[in-house]
Amino acid sequence: MKIVRDVLEMQNICTDLRHAQKRIGCVPTMGALHEGHLSLLHIARQRCDISVMTLFVNPTQFGPKEDLLKYPRPFDKDCEVAEKHGCDILFAPDTNDMYPDNYMSYVVVENITHKLEGESRPGHFRGVTTIVLKLFNITIPHIAVFGQKDAQQAIVLKRMVTDLNLPVELIIAPTLREKDGLALSSRNTYLTKKERLKVPLLYQGLHKAEQEHNRGELFAKNLIKHIKETYKKTELFKAEYIAIVDVENLEPVETISGKTLIAVACRTKETNTRLIDNIILGGTL
Amino acid sequence: MKIVRDVLEMQNICTDLRHAQKRIGCVPTMGALHEGHLSLLHIARQRCDISVMTLFVNPTQFGPKEDLLKYPRPFDKDCEVAEKHGCDILFAPDTNDMYPDNYMSYVVVENITHKLEGESRPGHFRGVTTIVLKLFNITIPHIAVFGQKDAQQAIVLKRMVTDLNLPVELIIAPTLREKDGLALSSRNTYLTKKERLKVPLLYQGLHKAEQEHNRGELFAKNLIKHIKETYKKTELFKAEYIAIVDVENLEPVETISGKTLIAVACRTKETNTRLIDNIILGGTL
Repeated sequence: MKIVRDVLEMQNICTDLRHAQKRIGCVPTMGALHEGHLSLLHIARQRCDISVMTLFVNPTQFGPKEDLLKYPRPFDKDCEVAEKHGCDILFAPDTNDMYPDNYMSYVVVENITHKLEGESRPGHFRGVTTIVLKLFNITIPHIAVFGQKDAQQAIVLKRMVTDLNLPVELIIAPTLREKDGLALSSRNTYLTKKERLKVPLLYQGLHKAEQEHNRGELFAKNLIKHIKETYKKTELFKAEYIAIVDVENLEPVETISGKTLIAVACRTKETNTRLIDNIILGGTL
Repeated sequence: MKIVRDVLEMQNICTDLRHAQKRIGCVPTMGALHEGHLSLLHIARQRCDISVMTLFVNPTQFGPKEDLLKYPRPFDKDCEVAEKHGCDILFAPDTNDMYPDNYMSYVVVENITHKLEGESRPGHFRGVTTIVLKLFNITIPHIAVFGQKDAQQAIVLKRMVTDLNLPVELIIAPTLREKDGLALSSRNTYLTKKERLKVPLLYQGLHKAEQEHNRGELFAKNLIKHIKETYKKTELFKAEYIAIVDVENLEPVETISGKTLIAVACRTKETNTRLIDNIILGGTL
């Protein structure tokens, strides 16, 4: 596995790969790799000649009061894990090279970025779309793989790709979960043991809603009721939102018909950790 | 010359050209072609295997009270002229294909877009950067050629290319002028005969400032005085701004040292036509 830190070097490598007719698959990550990231890498490897994993804790997607500084950065372990799983090139640029002094350009997706995550995290998606566009311009991929765990991110990025005519195919891979249902996340390491025991309820609520929907329940407000009942079983986290929305425009849905996203966010009591999860009814992203 | 209207067709053609190792040079225009545009095309042809001219009157860069509807659209003549001057591919998409319903993604360059043109034309540069990024993603050029006449646009686009790591080289070509000094512009066709006789003063003021600078004048306020005196010779236009600024950050300069932009904008009295012009002291863009 080649480790590249320099932006221009990376861009030149990928330009040369393009000239050599190689297909490039990109997996953008913030590191702290877990099985979820590796499943994305696996898809990139299956579909392309060259797999590129990017590893960059992107400051512009963190709010001023968020966990930028404490976000885990186990760089050596990440390199080891990525290499072991067949990553061809790991791109890990410096923050100053990605955002030099006088940096002033951003990609903004309006409307759908103000809902759900955007409400609690103003500016978050501007940071995400900007860094992803930059990484696409540097790694020039044919495909890029993201996880469904960040469902709104996937929806926003798809919108960016369509609107800005980016010549790249986005692939959204299913969420990987622990045996008890907890979605894999780099932020799970923040949890106390007590919290860790209770946070699987976050998914259990979603799963309950899915079961009720499969049994014929079509009213969003009834599904939300089931989720809330599940979350009442613990005081170790509080829901920030429980939303049932259209997968395209993220507008609330009253009666489930087409593809529908059920998205939840919560904060834990002891460590104030923010966790998100979601399921899609009626299809995939 | 091939005329392409479909976005995906254009993107496929350019992807194939890239695979065939052809160098693509792109000249984005809003049509109403004049010699200035053709000089840009000439540069693209010299430097590349394939010249692509885009022709699209971009609604998102016009303010609500601006001249979007009356902007000249001599499509057949433009095609004829472009072909005669050796353009390989003319890309002229429909507005609905470039900005379909639910369109919501924009590229924003902060700070330098709020000055000069940005003050009179809020949102203008957001429209420019967005459409140029889209056109780059569709035509996948190695180089793109713009005119110095829109100096701030050139500076903003260079900033976008650097910040977003776009794999394209921007070339800024010198402003072409009529014999009396008036910068070529599609908007010159709006002028009455009386206005047309007087608007060359716009450049004459700049030229006077350049001469005074060459004679050793280093103080911006004195150069501005010379320009204002020139503009006093007519009542047929009024200056909107006369600015002497750093070419990178567009901050006002007191004493000329490095590369400095002198930029002016005016409105004519009879037809309310907005004209801009500029010169660079100490170098080129």
